[in-house]
Amino acid sequence: MINKKRFIAVIGGAEPSPQEAKLAEEVGRELAKQGASLVCGGLGGVMEAACQGAQSEGGVTIGILPGESRQAANPYVQIPIVTGIGYARNVAVVKSAQAVIAIGGSYGTLSEISHALQSGIPVIGLNTWSLSRNGQQDNSIILAQNPTEAVNKALNLATN
Amino acid sequence: MINKKRFIAVIGGAEPSPQEAKLAEEVGRELAKQGASLVCGGLGGVMEAACQGAQSEGGVTIGILPGESRQAANPYVQIPIVTGIGYARNVAVVKSAQAVIAIGGSYGTLSEISHALQSGIPVIGLNTWSLSRNGQQDNSIILAQNPTEAVNKALNLATN
Amino acid sequence: MINKKRFIAVIGGAEPSPQEAKLAEEVGRELAKQGASLVCGGLGGVMEAACQGAQSEGGVTIGILPGESRQAANPYVQIPIVTGIGYARNVAVVKSAQAVIAIGGSYGTLSEISHALQSGIPVIGLNTWSLSRNGQQDNSIILAQNPTEAVNKALNLATN
Amino acid sequence: MINKKRFIAVIGGAEPSPQEAKLAEEVGRELAKQGASLVCGGLGGVMEAACQGAQSEGGVTIGILPGESRQAANPYVQIPIVTGIGYARNVAVVKSAQAVIAIGGSYGTLSEISHALQSGIPVIGLNTWSLSRNGQQDNSIILAQNPTEAVNKALNLATN
Repeated sequence: MINKKRFIAVIGGAEPSPQEAKLAEEVGRELAKQGASLVCGGLGGVMEAACQGAQSEGGVTIGILPGESRQAANPYVQIPIVTGIGYARNVAVVKSAQAVIAIGGSYGTLSEISHALQSGIPVIGLNTWSLSRNGQQDNSIILAQNPTEAVNKALNLATN
Repeated sequence: MINKKRFIAVIGGAEPSPQEAKLAEEVGRELAKQGASLVCGGLGGVMEAACQGAQSEGGVTIGILPGESRQAANPYVQIPIVTGIGYARNVAVVKSAQAVIAIGGSYGTLSEISHALQSGIPVIGLNTWSLSRNGQQDNSIILAQNPTEAVNKALNLATN
Repeated sequence: MINKKRFIAVIGGAEPSPQEAKLAEEVGRELAKQGASLVCGGLGGVMEAACQGAQSEGGVTIGILPGESRQAANPYVQIPIVTGIGYARNVAVVKSAQAVIAIGGSYGTLSEISHALQSGIPVIGLNTWSLSRNGQQDNSIILAQNPTEAVNKALNLATN
Repeated sequence: MINKKRFIAVIGGAEPSPQEAKLAEEVGRELAKQGASLVCGGLGGVMEAACQGAQSEGGVTIGILPGESRQAANPYVQIPIVTGIGYARNVAVVKSAQAVIAIGGSYGTLSEISHALQSGIPVIGLNTWSLSRNGQQDNSIILAQNPTEAVNKALNLATN
């Protein structure tokens, strides 16, 4: 049963550290336990670990893929969306969610964080980017200390 | 339970005739009965009627929206994908499906038919466009006489 | 010197017949003579022939590319736009023009014709698709008998 | 005359400080003097100031617009590209350039910086974002002290 009110994106790199992969899996599991659907970019690394965690708890997993084929989806994506628009799909990943949890990640993840903040979608960070602009710290990314805190903050802020 | 092997798009206009809306609803219902997930553009008209039919039989409905907000989705969309890319999302609607059923429709539907045929995705037509190129009939759109035949043909051809 | 009021798209297949390539080159040449800038998808075939014609008369050529690299542009594209969004760039090709001239072409061209008509952008056809909907001929594509007539009709209709 | 080898993007916010607008205008002027074409998002603020500077020195200005209409372009855009894909056009802005100069800016600019770095396109920064990841400074944005230095660094790095 899909809860129409709760779509949370999990973003992060395709080549996470083992610790980041573990965080992602726990985030996915916790999202599923709380009845939220998981949105991600559909590929490997953090995306795959989060989907695996969600699926292990019976959660729904949606992968918004950059390329031309559903075959690129990780095996735990239940609903592959094939966009064919490359990294421009990063915009759709965050816009399809009511809040975003960022775990580690490189420039692709940073672009997703930026697109989310630009659209007013809350971003929760676990071991991820921090930003400053013109020498001043930007505190828009909401920090979490662990997966459960990240999921709780995301669900509390998921109001749109 | 989502069947990962069967995603069928239903495309058609936002302002269908009553007959087209009825066809769409029956297509949605039949897809759900046969365990396929329904992909569509997420808005009204044919899209809404198809989602309503699918939901009435317990099927999964995915709406790939053009705009910036999930609020635009029709009430029978369970999984709204918010792309923010306007009509360029038509490409994602067809690429996310293994076969496409076109019902009536105007130029937006024709663009989806074209993108599907360009990508080698089978298109089944119910009261929709027909094409000729340089004076020669193009028979790429596979005709169906009724919703059940359309769904059966789509599922038989859904192999990618 | 770029005339800001006149951007005309030339669309057509990557593998045209010799006759279609000749039509495209003449269309490009005539557009340049009349001071219009040429917009196209930036690749080979009709796109390349049209750019070559335009450049031979000192015209401006803009290629809106589907892929990730400017290297894919044909050698007569002066301004390569690298979208990285695949066939979704077809929408940008027609929206960036005030009128569209279609020469031959396959399903990609048909998608561009559809997107143009959906957006209210006039389409002039030379040996290209013809359409009928539900058994009724659709006459939205304006026919031209030769390149000069196509260009004249396009420029007369280029008002947005 | 368009130099096919030199396309430089200027990115920054729609609501710059007076100092940032002045920097943008000088960057635009310097790019034109050195024969480079200016690529930008086509709207106001930094984009407009940069186009104005470039045009004042006879340079070419290209605006890759997010919306559905060329009317949204600032008056100094000579070549408006109408994408209709919203903020996903940020990817095309940077991919269409061989180097990027970022001036101030908010989250939209940060997304463009991220997409550029993800694609290996050099980014030169003037009073813009700085980044750290997991507590470690990321020095991928190349700092410049003034517009001339920014343009020189961009042109030296524009090799793709």
